[in-house]
Amino acid sequence: MTAPARFITFEGIDGSGKSTQARRLADALRAAGHAVVLTREPGGSPGAEEIRSLVLEGDPDRWSAQTEILLFTAARRDHLERTIEPALAAGKIVICDRFVDSTRMYQGLSRGDLRALVDTLHDLMIGREPDLTLLIDLDPDTGLTRARGRQGHEERFEDFGPDLQQRMRAGFRALAREFAPRFRIIDGARTEEEVARDVFSVVEQALA
Amino acid sequence: MTAPARFITFEGIDGSGKSTQARRLADALRAAGHAVVLTREPGGSPGAEEIRSLVLEGDPDRWSAQTEILLFTAARRDHLERTIEPALAAGKIVICDRFVDSTRMYQGLSRGDLRALVDTLHDLMIGREPDLTLLIDLDPDTGLTRARGRQGHEERFEDFGPDLQQRMRAGFRALAREFAPRFRIIDGARTEEEVARDVFSVVEQALA
Repeated sequence: MTAPARFITFEGIDGSGKSTQARRLADALRAAGHAVVLTREPGGSPGAEEIRSLVLEGDPDRWSAQTEILLFTAARRDHLERTIEPALAAGKIVICDRFVDSTRMYQGLSRGDLRALVDTLHDLMIGREPDLTLLIDLDPDTGLTRARGRQGHEERFEDFGPDLQQRMRAGFRALAREFAPRFRIIDGARTEEEVARDVFSVVEQALA
Repeated sequence: MTAPARFITFEGIDGSGKSTQARRLADALRAAGHAVVLTREPGGSPGAEEIRSLVLEGDPDRWSAQTEILLFTAARRDHLERTIEPALAAGKIVICDRFVDSTRMYQGLSRGDLRALVDTLHDLMIGREPDLTLLIDLDPDTGLTRARGRQGHEERFEDFGPDLQQRMRAGFRALAREFAPRFRIIDGARTEEEVARDVFSVVEQALA
């Protein structure tokens, strides 16, 4: 018998280590015999990756907040249809690095108060919340230092600056309270190894 | 004194002559001393043109109907913000070759019954109807013959085939009844010159 399908997302500010932890969790679950699809947003399917490039490359202000939310929702719809739903239907575990909670934070908070619009479009076009969300919680000062080490041309999330990153951290923690049943806050201010052990233990319980 | 701003759209099946008529109307209005912006959808602003390429190039089935509607709505939002609204605010006449009525027809009808979704997204994200819509009405057999003469690599609307084009013609005429106050049906089965005279006369009355 296979384990029941689970849709697990990682959230957190940049440099929190969530991408590393998502990869480590995928490896650990595969080693334990699970079929796993590791994916990410924005992107995660060929069409959604093209939309990702359209949004993240070029002048950060070339799209209004509203247009950007529409583009992210289009990318998520494609990702859901082409990658996430087929994998879940096949009984696989899906691990996704960022999902709608990132849109709730980055587009909903940082570019005007558009949280209600993000939620309305999500309910209309996506309609799926993760089963389990791991918030890798970290002080932005530590996170920013880590993120700068690997900054690429499209990684403009880091450009938000320390004040905004503090607001984002607080916003993610508020989301964890709002969606308490599916959120687990993981202390990211430890070694990668310690965080990975904690993540795996939480996921093992959720899969049981 | 300048004439009051007017947002005028052209609609109709492919090959109906609407793009030619939109251009002729722009020329005629400019000759009469009006400031005119001639634009088109999908596209009409740099960002929206990029989204147009994303949607219309490549495999026609690579986007689901729902994702396609989101992408068209994102393009329309950008077009509205960057091109249409600034021109109207400056007192110009905006002539647009296709607008939301085309989405109501092509995405709302041809790819499943998604008209309600098109309208919901339009109300939420766009919220503007044209002041005047000229439906260039033509028998699809005539229209298809014209359209094939200029088919380009992204012009997949023509691939819908004669049955669907007949449904589209009927659908556009039904839209004209639904939005009767702003629609004018123009008989497109005449010479280009005759149609242009008719269009100009209708617009002159609407601008008065």
